[in-house]
Amino acid sequence: MREQARARLDALAKPPGSLGRLETLAVQLCEIAGACPPPFPSPVRVFVFAGDHGVLAQGVSPWPQSVTAAMVRTFAMGGAAVNALARQVGAEVTVVDVGVAAPVRGALDRNVRRATADLSVGPAMSADEASEAFEVGRSLAAESDAGLLVTGDMGIGNTTPSACIIAALTGRAAADVTGRGTGIDDATLELKTAIVEAAVARVRGADARTVLAEVGGLEIAAIAGLIAGARVPVVVDGVIALAGLLVAATLDPAVIHRVIAGHRSTEPGAAAALDHLGLDPLLDLGMRLGEGTGALLAVPIVQAAARIITEMATLDDVLGS
Amino acid sequence: MREQARARLDALAKPPGSLGRLETLAVQLCEIAGACPPPFPSPVRVFVFAGDHGVLAQGVSPWPQSVTAAMVRTFAMGGAAVNALARQVGAEVTVVDVGVAAPVRGALDRNVRRATADLSVGPAMSADEASEAFEVGRSLAAESDAGLLVTGDMGIGNTTPSACIIAALTGRAAADVTGRGTGIDDATLELKTAIVEAAVARVRGADARTVLAEVGGLEIAAIAGLIAGARVPVVVDGVIALAGLLVAATLDPAVIHRVIAGHRSTEPGAAAALDHLGLDPLLDLGMRLGEGTGALLAVPIVQAAARIITEMATLDDVLGS
Repeated sequence: MREQARARLDALAKPPGSLGRLETLAVQLCEIAGACPPPFPSPVRVFVFAGDHGVLAQGVSPWPQSVTAAMVRTFAMGGAAVNALARQVGAEVTVVDVGVAAPVRGALDRNVRRATADLSVGPAMSADEASEAFEVGRSLAAESDAGLLVTGDMGIGNTTPSACIIAALTGRAAADVTGRGTGIDDATLELKTAIVEAAVARVRGADARTVLAEVGGLEIAAIAGLIAGARVPVVVDGVIALAGLLVAATLDPAVIHRVIAGHRSTEPGAAAALDHLGLDPLLDLGMRLGEGTGALLAVPIVQAAARIITEMATLDDVLGS
Repeated sequence: MREQARARLDALAKPPGSLGRLETLAVQLCEIAGACPPPFPSPVRVFVFAGDHGVLAQGVSPWPQSVTAAMVRTFAMGGAAVNALARQVGAEVTVVDVGVAAPVRGALDRNVRRATADLSVGPAMSADEASEAFEVGRSLAAESDAGLLVTGDMGIGNTTPSACIIAALTGRAAADVTGRGTGIDDATLELKTAIVEAAVARVRGADARTVLAEVGGLEIAAIAGLIAGARVPVVVDGVIALAGLLVAATLDPAVIHRVIAGHRSTEPGAAAALDHLGLDPLLDLGMRLGEGTGALLAVPIVQAAARIITEMATLDDVLGS
């Protein structure tokens, strides 16, 4: 399929290789679909998984836990960044409560538990809860009519479990993968890094499912499941999505072939995860919001790649005309 | 206007600055429109200016001159890369024959002369012809209903005049700004660089209009005019567009505030022009095709920036809900 796609691209009305990443993306789309040209990657569905985090009690974020539920309500009303970008690219947003601390309206209710436990003092969740949250994502992907899936997340405090997972599954030091998230000062960053370091020490050498349960998050587990269950291309967002992807790719390395990195988050854990996975994001616009925003902005590029290999005339057509 | 836009962005339901380049773009859109929120940048019109180049006789490209007209016909039939990407982003393509060597159907006929003269042996065109081609672009911009303009180009051999203009107007050496275009070997690159060096020596210290006429191209002049005449944001493409922009910005430095660099072309002259103009492209996808393709892919990002500042709820809305 790779050779067939490459040959088709080289026959098009352009110098070979002159469309750069659009051409490698087009090849990837053909490989995922097992067809050349590939089906147009549409409809686009972004799943925003929301969950809360017990570790917030340690003061790892300046934002209160109630912001998670407030943002879920904002997603439902269409007023968040992810909604604005979804309208731009023609994507449908589904918000999924997989672990919000308090009952919230406007989200698909797949709540597994009302926030994780504090990962700095014990397991964030049980193995069964992690599996249940993973299954939420897996089944949504399996049942979706999407031609292109996009990962999104909401959860105050969720860069801490993401840093833990990335450190544990890449072997990088806590200090290399722990960042300022939505914006914390030096003292908070020091505290956060120490928490990540201590938590990761508990799971060094453990398998991915154990890491996910011990130091992870419910929305991260659901993202891992969404990626694992996808049969179509998946555009992943920033550091939270990459933590989920690391779990999914550790469990089954084949999933990485279906994944497209949308945007290079400024969070340091994102760079570590991307390096480890061998991914090079399409965009680098200095974004660090999450919600799926970085991934959504990459959607038109993915669709453009499909159009190139499907719609362009060949050089023979052009010179014979 | 900048302070008003910045204050609005900081009040939105997200950590300040967390949308990175989308936020600086949103500020720029407000400044261009003199309104916050700005009008949605639509409809999107891409003008593909086509012209031929006498310098092709020196063997600076492996492609024959007839490819320019063949590609114009392909644009008219919707089979080129620019057409596929325009459909993706909802843009309308207008192909303008400003200097094609032979009469061609399917383009707006604004032909000023049938190809430039060979810039390696004398002026590419007269000052009047350069002004006339500039006016083609200027009047199309002035009369357009576009909310967002996009520059495109077609002209076999046109990286040579572009390199000449960039060298002349930035003061960089010919070897620093001359590249492989659509793909040439080392010997051809050496020849092309020598031609650029000799041509630029003739216009060192000349004003921008003289440079344009002596060593430029008709489609480059039209792009310069389009940028000069625009009253809305303009997304510029690769090295050919940047040569046109350099002319426009040298004539009137104020135009740069309306310009958004879409994509970082791999052609070395593009980097020199971007540095000189202080522009940082939104995309870097290894593309080097021209036609407007790199600029078109940036359109959804520009429109997303407008949506962010227009459609998002404020943090007060969210926390009060």
